[in-house]
Amino acid sequence: MIRMNFGITLQYEVIGQPADFILNIHAANTPHQTVVTEDFSISQSVPVDMYEEPFYGTRFARFKANAGPITVRYNATVDIDAYIAEPSTLRESPIAEIPQAILHYVYPSRYCQSDRLHKFAAREFGQWAPGFSRVQAIAEWIRQRTVFESGASKGTTSAVDTLIEQAGVCRDFAHLMIALCRAVNIPARFATGIDYGAAPELGACDFHAYVEVYLSGRWYIIDPSGISPPQGLIRLGTGRDAADVAFATIFGQVNSWAPTVFIDAVNDPANGYEMPVRNNLAVSTQA
Amino acid sequence: MIRMNFGITLQYEVIGQPADFILNIHAANTPHQTVVTEDFSISQSVPVDMYEEPFYGTRFARFKANAGPITVRYNATVDIDAYIAEPSTLRESPIAEIPQAILHYVYPSRYCQSDRLHKFAAREFGQWAPGFSRVQAIAEWIRQRTVFESGASKGTTSAVDTLIEQAGVCRDFAHLMIALCRAVNIPARFATGIDYGAAPELGACDFHAYVEVYLSGRWYIIDPSGISPPQGLIRLGTGRDAADVAFATIFGQVNSWAPTVFIDAVNDPANGYEMPVRNNLAVSTQA
Amino acid sequence: MIRMNFGITLQYEVIGQPADFILNIHAANTPHQTVVTEDFSISQSVPVDMYEEPFYGTRFARFKANAGPITVRYNATVDIDAYIAEPSTLRESPIAEIPQAILHYVYPSRYCQSDRLHKFAAREFGQWAPGFSRVQAIAEWIRQRTVFESGASKGTTSAVDTLIEQAGVCRDFAHLMIALCRAVNIPARFATGIDYGAAPELGACDFHAYVEVYLSGRWYIIDPSGISPPQGLIRLGTGRDAADVAFATIFGQVNSWAPTVFIDAVNDPANGYEMPVRNNLAVSTQA
Amino acid sequence: MIRMNFGITLQYEVIGQPADFILNIHAANTPHQTVVTEDFSISQSVPVDMYEEPFYGTRFARFKANAGPITVRYNATVDIDAYIAEPSTLRESPIAEIPQAILHYVYPSRYCQSDRLHKFAAREFGQWAPGFSRVQAIAEWIRQRTVFESGASKGTTSAVDTLIEQAGVCRDFAHLMIALCRAVNIPARFATGIDYGAAPELGACDFHAYVEVYLSGRWYIIDPSGISPPQGLIRLGTGRDAADVAFATIFGQVNSWAPTVFIDAVNDPANGYEMPVRNNLAVSTQA
Repeated sequence: MIRMNFGITLQYEVIGQPADFILNIHAANTPHQTVVTEDFSISQSVPVDMYEEPFYGTRFARFKANAGPITVRYNATVDIDAYIAEPSTLRESPIAEIPQAILHYVYPSRYCQSDRLHKFAAREFGQWAPGFSRVQAIAEWIRQRTVFESGASKGTTSAVDTLIEQAGVCRDFAHLMIALCRAVNIPARFATGIDYGAAPELGACDFHAYVEVYLSGRWYIIDPSGISPPQGLIRLGTGRDAADVAFATIFGQVNSWAPTVFIDAVNDPANGYEMPVRNNLAVSTQA
Repeated sequence: MIRMNFGITLQYEVIGQPADFILNIHAANTPHQTVVTEDFSISQSVPVDMYEEPFYGTRFARFKANAGPITVRYNATVDIDAYIAEPSTLRESPIAEIPQAILHYVYPSRYCQSDRLHKFAAREFGQWAPGFSRVQAIAEWIRQRTVFESGASKGTTSAVDTLIEQAGVCRDFAHLMIALCRAVNIPARFATGIDYGAAPELGACDFHAYVEVYLSGRWYIIDPSGISPPQGLIRLGTGRDAADVAFATIFGQVNSWAPTVFIDAVNDPANGYEMPVRNNLAVSTQA
Repeated sequence: MIRMNFGITLQYEVIGQPADFILNIHAANTPHQTVVTEDFSISQSVPVDMYEEPFYGTRFARFKANAGPITVRYNATVDIDAYIAEPSTLRESPIAEIPQAILHYVYPSRYCQSDRLHKFAAREFGQWAPGFSRVQAIAEWIRQRTVFESGASKGTTSAVDTLIEQAGVCRDFAHLMIALCRAVNIPARFATGIDYGAAPELGACDFHAYVEVYLSGRWYIIDPSGISPPQGLIRLGTGRDAADVAFATIFGQVNSWAPTVFIDAVNDPANGYEMPVRNNLAVSTQA
Repeated sequence: MIRMNFGITLQYEVIGQPADFILNIHAANTPHQTVVTEDFSISQSVPVDMYEEPFYGTRFARFKANAGPITVRYNATVDIDAYIAEPSTLRESPIAEIPQAILHYVYPSRYCQSDRLHKFAAREFGQWAPGFSRVQAIAEWIRQRTVFESGASKGTTSAVDTLIEQAGVCRDFAHLMIALCRAVNIPARFATGIDYGAAPELGACDFHAYVEVYLSGRWYIIDPSGISPPQGLIRLGTGRDAADVAFATIFGQVNSWAPTVFIDAVNDPANGYEMPVRNNLAVSTQA
């Protein structure tokens, strides 16, 4: 079991008219991730509408903020009880066995144009032995070809752009990984989180983006940017790609400041809390 | 009430290895569309896995076909009992009132890059009075600027391509409409169907693609290609864009022939069956 | 006659290996622009290869810089004796009358994909009366739809991107103008310069980019960003688009600082030197 | 010496208004290619304006055709006296030694966006030994990854599209080759021609597109589609990419039919005319 404490502070200035905010900064509720305590506060006194997406436990806070400054704070303690598998036991599902509700994770999405990449992916990865090793090899292939570079991409950058220009941030690594997996018919999706273990020099990835692939009937975590040990990822949102789970979607005119984020892991083996470590096992935190 | 009979015949030749087919050619089951009779047959004797998507009643038939020729036939009689509204009564929902489960229809998707079009759409449509009239005006704006031209687009063509190159088929009109609506924060989605009233010279649109927009708590039909009276549309699939509801998704190598499709409306007013006609009312066939 | 003094200072740090520099910061030599005095210096003692392009007088300085800091300074006094025409007298050339050597300015180039915009441009501008007024109207159309916004674009941004996303800097305005003019068969090209009159808040445009269109057998200046009076533009380079006339093309690894630029106009009517002013005349500084 | 006879027939129907044609179907005049006899005829009696581009001998025929059918025929006998080099002797020019007039062939152009491919090309090809062998290896790299497929591309398809989608025709192979060469600073350009040796099943490439790279002070031929022995290529046009040297640029509304093309080589060793053969030498037909 891993226990982590984390906190997020967001600061905005709403200009002129009230603005609608939809935030996805709460820790998700999943069978493998339990929110032990949490505290959410907004500096303006406005009603907040909370919503929990029924399949993946992604939680959204929606409110209308008035003109002027607004600060949002969220702090939580979260327990993660991952499902761990031996990588060599995991297999890719034939199309005929992928549940229909999961099939759309094989289809292209806004930032993951797998429909354009079928020939490319088949040629690069089609001959590799299927399974978790192939997924890891795709992640490694991306890491070898892509420079982690703040400012190399923008909000509209897609997997195809990253494949061509070979530079980006965690979100771009994730989109490219998803697109390439889907192009060889492996269901893949996008997750956002806070990552224990991000090197401090990679500050742009405080909010982290990573990938899940569907193998042997479960979703397993892959972080193509290589930043985080999979068990050190607190899940915020799960979706097809970044279009689904932006940490903040804002309708209206605002100025914003860089978010501040902290995260700590509880080192208390006597009570069953281990530190997140990097190992060679396959980690799933969502069935 | 509208009663229509329609039929679809698909022909393929599977080459070498067996191929997985996922077809979306069954009429959807919705509160407003009732399948009275139907018949589905495949020329190969293989098991078919049927699946009905729980929210919109989209139905998928999945099977693995063996090498060699395969013919798929679907015939059905369908009753459509549309909800009709006076257009002037429909209003756009403020962001704060859009149900969370519908919000992702405001976000960009594979072929509808609304994230790139916010300034464009705000400038063109931002000053128009909100409501159904604005939606109709966006459809008209597209029709005036886009040539219906078979072969002008391909499977990877997106809304941005169509906006720039101003030519395409029904699917392209629909994607552009969806992208522009989302860019002004109107939830919009993609539907496929068989359309009564397609001019015979527009044969490429036997399988039709059209749009639904969310107004006053319901989804209303808009056909930006202007081909069909909204009540003459038999719904097959509903999704974010064409990535979700291709009529045929095939994994494997096949040759294919153009589908053949027929549709007839029952003209029997004595028993309550009217012909689909074009009028100025707003038509919804899905809450 | 206009006399202007201007100066440019560029600062780089060459890292590791020597780097090749090709600079286009010298004032062009043209029949309408005379370099009265100039001074070019580099802080490293390396040989400089000067080249003057024979048609438009664009001048390039090429040198190989060694590892370490390097500062480049260019100062000049330039006289501009523009050809002035009454806009209403200028006409567009029918294709049959455009000289062959100029025809490629009707064709698409890297950042000006006019081949994709024929239908778009024909629909928007095809019905307008041809001539300088149409060109001015295209510039005005762009200005009304595009936000001048530093950071909205990057080096690979093209006219199609700017048309869709409606934000950019002077270079983007110029590329969009060129693409739209070519799409209605008006030869158009890209020029770079230093602009007298740039509002100080638009500091990003110290190096300015503007457009020339070919009418009645001459190239006339249009600045779609609206920043500069045409006679206040000192010409550095002329090309199909920014791919031809970057102010600095560098092969190798360097750090760079923002260039510093100054420009002054000589106000000395007694000696024939007027200040550049904005008026309604058409200005040509290159036949 | 190679002597070839070839002929081209183009057929159009001009609709409504007269249309301007600019054809590049004449054999180029170059120091290595001599037009022995030629015959050009148009079925309409309209004046033809011939133009020969001064650097590369590309020839253009321009005329205004009236409404109705028009047939254009060109037949020629051409001698090609190629410059042959031992590939191992050819070296890439350092930037400092590339003549300024040739430098723009290192810059990106409409269909060859080398500016986006620097990291990609450096990673794939940066470690290979420079020279003709590297150029051949790039061509081979493309051939291994790209399917020759009629209809896979259209007129607006670019090198980046082909790199991603891995299918195209000769023009697409050429654009990708040019973009990748430029991205590693090898000047590269586009040539069109009629190719002796095209397999008949590749009918779409009657008009062929190929590449020239600049090595050791000369332009050498590379055909990345692998269709033609380099000496069996009759040169029509030379440019940055297809934007410069379309075989037909038409302003106006026309219907067109597929061109018909024939080519024969004279097998007359007694008089010094050899057949074009595929060998391992480097072939240049333009200094």
